[in-house]
Amino acid sequence: MQAKKPSESYTMMNEIVLPNDTNTLNNLMGGRLLHWMDIVAAIAAQKHSNNIVVTASVDGVSFKEAIRLGDVVTLEAYVTRSFNTSMEVYIEVWGQNIPRGEKYKCNDAYYTFVALDSRHKPVAVPPVEPETDVQKQKYEGALRRRQVRLVMAGKLKPDDAIELKAYFNEG
Amino acid sequence: MQAKKPSESYTMMNEIVLPNDTNTLNNLMGGRLLHWMDIVAAIAAQKHSNNIVVTASVDGVSFKEAIRLGDVVTLEAYVTRSFNTSMEVYIEVWGQNIPRGEKYKCNDAYYTFVALDSRHKPVAVPPVEPETDVQKQKYEGALRRRQVRLVMAGKLKPDDAIELKAYFNEG
Amino acid sequence: MQAKKPSESYTMMNEIVLPNDTNTLNNLMGGRLLHWMDIVAAIAAQKHSNNIVVTASVDGVSFKEAIRLGDVVTLEAYVTRSFNTSMEVYIEVWGQNIPRGEKYKCNDAYYTFVALDSRHKPVAVPPVEPETDVQKQKYEGALRRRQVRLVMAGKLKPDDAIELKAYFNEG
Amino acid sequence: MQAKKPSESYTMMNEIVLPNDTNTLNNLMGGRLLHWMDIVAAIAAQKHSNNIVVTASVDGVSFKEAIRLGDVVTLEAYVTRSFNTSMEVYIEVWGQNIPRGEKYKCNDAYYTFVALDSRHKPVAVPPVEPETDVQKQKYEGALRRRQVRLVMAGKLKPDDAIELKAYFNEG
Amino acid sequence: MQAKKPSESYTMMNEIVLPNDTNTLNNLMGGRLLHWMDIVAAIAAQKHSNNIVVTASVDGVSFKEAIRLGDVVTLEAYVTRSFNTSMEVYIEVWGQNIPRGEKYKCNDAYYTFVALDSRHKPVAVPPVEPETDVQKQKYEGALRRRQVRLVMAGKLKPDDAIELKAYFNEG
Amino acid sequence: MQAKKPSESYTMMNEIVLPNDTNTLNNLMGGRLLHWMDIVAAIAAQKHSNNIVVTASVDGVSFKEAIRLGDVVTLEAYVTRSFNTSMEVYIEVWGQNIPRGEKYKCNDAYYTFVALDSRHKPVAVPPVEPETDVQKQKYEGALRRRQVRLVMAGKLKPDDAIELKAYFNEG
Repeated sequence: MQAKKPSESYTMMNEIVLPNDTNTLNNLMGGRLLHWMDIVAAIAAQKHSNNIVVTASVDGVSFKEAIRLGDVVTLEAYVTRSFNTSMEVYIEVWGQNIPRGEKYKCNDAYYTFVALDSRHKPVAVPPVEPETDVQKQKYEGALRRRQVRLVMAGKLKPDDAIELKAYFNEG
Repeated sequence: MQAKKPSESYTMMNEIVLPNDTNTLNNLMGGRLLHWMDIVAAIAAQKHSNNIVVTASVDGVSFKEAIRLGDVVTLEAYVTRSFNTSMEVYIEVWGQNIPRGEKYKCNDAYYTFVALDSRHKPVAVPPVEPETDVQKQKYEGALRRRQVRLVMAGKLKPDDAIELKAYFNEG
Repeated sequence: MQAKKPSESYTMMNEIVLPNDTNTLNNLMGGRLLHWMDIVAAIAAQKHSNNIVVTASVDGVSFKEAIRLGDVVTLEAYVTRSFNTSMEVYIEVWGQNIPRGEKYKCNDAYYTFVALDSRHKPVAVPPVEPETDVQKQKYEGALRRRQVRLVMAGKLKPDDAIELKAYFNEG
Repeated sequence: MQAKKPSESYTMMNEIVLPNDTNTLNNLMGGRLLHWMDIVAAIAAQKHSNNIVVTASVDGVSFKEAIRLGDVVTLEAYVTRSFNTSMEVYIEVWGQNIPRGEKYKCNDAYYTFVALDSRHKPVAVPPVEPETDVQKQKYEGALRRRQVRLVMAGKLKPDDAIELKAYFNEG
Repeated sequence: MQAKKPSESYTMMNEIVLPNDTNTLNNLMGGRLLHWMDIVAAIAAQKHSNNIVVTASVDGVSFKEAIRLGDVVTLEAYVTRSFNTSMEVYIEVWGQNIPRGEKYKCNDAYYTFVALDSRHKPVAVPPVEPETDVQKQKYEGALRRRQVRLVMAGKLKPDDAIELKAYFNEG
Repeated sequence: MQAKKPSESYTMMNEIVLPNDTNTLNNLMGGRLLHWMDIVAAIAAQKHSNNIVVTASVDGVSFKEAIRLGDVVTLEAYVTRSFNTSMEVYIEVWGQNIPRGEKYKCNDAYYTFVALDSRHKPVAVPPVEPETDVQKQKYEGALRRRQVRLVMAGKLKPDDAIELKAYFNEG
């Protein structure tokens, strides 16, 4: 199976925060943003796998900065690494107040998707071939994040999380 | 500050999966469920802190089983532990096909919220006093999950994640 | 057919009033609340009948107190009585401003549902066996409310509404 | 205060039932229709009172016929009678499958609204002067329906519901 | 095929501008209004053709006046002219602040729809027989507007747009 | 005022067609797409003007190809030309069925926006400096499209639409 570059799955989405999307503090609701992140990441995963995809897990979503009513939200996503039938997608979210000339990082996150064939069974996806330094870092880190997910979910014994253990011992 | 029990923040929500909520496989969309989880968890965090709350992070969401169109979704949430101005909330999601008498675990997750005072500044929240064995386990694990969050986000050196290191060495 | 207790159909739902849900006075819209009441009541009717259900009628919805933007809405529903293929469901709605420590009754109502089998034809449902005093009162009143519905809809002659006549004569 | 005719508050609304509006049987959801009825009735009540209005109660909603996906929904509403600061609005709902040339009555209902002045306090509304026979019938019946509402809500003793008692004795 | 009058396709829709429908200036969002115009115009086109219809083009939408939060929106639509399988629909939109007794023209537009038979293939629709002077004007203008659409879309050479050329030379 | 290039206002948006967005033929609803086009075009106009913008007119929307449920929608927008306080934005819409490897042009359109200052009054915007051949063509055509809009809206005499007349005579 031919490897694909992150630039081939790269997907961008822009939205405006409308009253409909805000909480009572006039900021973009966390849940609404999680929904948009799910859509942009699913498109990236489709592009990488050329298949239907379903969300498998969500991790490391950290809301650093609230996005205000009327601001533009920019979401960028690409596949960082694949594991047989699943793919980790990295999503970065920016807020922008264009009239005031402000652009600020809102948050980032990792979503994992599973590719399905036409009978809705998991199907293998191409490997990822990172190009830039950041992409290579994300590629390396993906293994560690996967072990964290498996350990925290009780599916992997801490002792078997080899890369993760090394990371903590080296750290 | 008087400690509070998880049962005091316990919140339940029931929804029906309507066509509006489904993806093209006729299953509940991941993004929609993340949104409902955000609402039920925010209510639990409000009950614990008696304050307005905003979502700070989302972790460990793992979709084990898709919820089908027409099924009933039950979400249960309570605060597992607090860290000064933030609270970790555990959410468990079940699907139910009542006519067929089926009930199945869909997923669980940890959302973190920060409490805000009336001027929208972070404010201290009461400690949690777990009662049942499961609550005590979640209380212990919260420290580890918090260290994972901080290490993965680059805010804590792996070497300083003491509980986490111990966990991997013991494991 | 084995009778079921109201506690077996009891269903709870919690929501937060978001800007999306409000009218121009910043209160929860009547129509939105009617929608949520329909969902929580339908789940209760499903639990009682173990069947698909459709809304047959809505009565006695009386909005006592407006629910404000940002407040938590709690809806509780259970089946009060069944009539062959239909069930009356009682719904009670509370508003809650958690930071201010206020909880207030918003309204209550009676929705009637019909159970359908897998070919979408009406199907008999179990009788209700009330336990508490309030449940017994609701069980008794259900007959009267049903006669009101039928008389007001022109499907029952006032003279044949025996329980209702007695009620007015005793009153 | 000058009386107004029902034709002065008459309001019509047309909608198409889209996938977004349906339950799992592909019919218009009860809750969604209740929402539309609330909007059309609120406009009629605004026209009659020339004031902001809020929903006070909902009664006598009876779903006779399900409206199918893709069908056109026609809602018609007018004020039947006013009681100091409140107004009863009659709403009639029709479904229409235009390609098949079918038009069918779906349901009708009575919503009650209270008019508010600019400080959000209840304010008196004009009396209604019915013109047609149907309007006169609805005008007469409004008193009876109001007594039913008050008696069923425990706000009026059955013995004091004079018109209602007469109705049952005559019936 | 029997001609039909514009009054036979006439369709009216009323909505209230709710917070959900507004932009950050508290006015009805352009996109939301375009959506409502699409629905009311599609119903008019269905009534004229007695068939399923799909939107083919949108032109001449000009927002003269913003509609404010809480105002009533009235949309009126009718078919102005048909061209074999397509129909031009004229839509007029009014805003109304009932408590203040204000009614103002918001905008108008022309949407074109194609009628589809039961196999989803384009199907001929009846001609339009205008009655009033305004309807006759719209009927005449429809040819010109169609040529503008075709010329601007590069589907008709300017030289072949006979009515349009005459219009500019006469003007 | 410094001219800006179309690439500076270029904005991209990606969406997935979910059941929520479809008509009864399982295609993306025209009205929903008009709404997305409004959002992507508004962001482009904001980027060009560095101001709040409101939709002024919509023209030349022509739906060539329906977008199917589950397909990815890509919208691209940039400012083609400005006229004092208003800007014409060109929007191009593509559908994509990724698993089947199909990408197809759905439609394009021109939206016009007006820039507003902080007191919500129209404010001058920078001129556009086109770079590519397509951008130059759009820049030229914008004058003609504007004259069409003004003539069709009765705000400009056909005789005064100089560029437009020339276009028809040359054609």
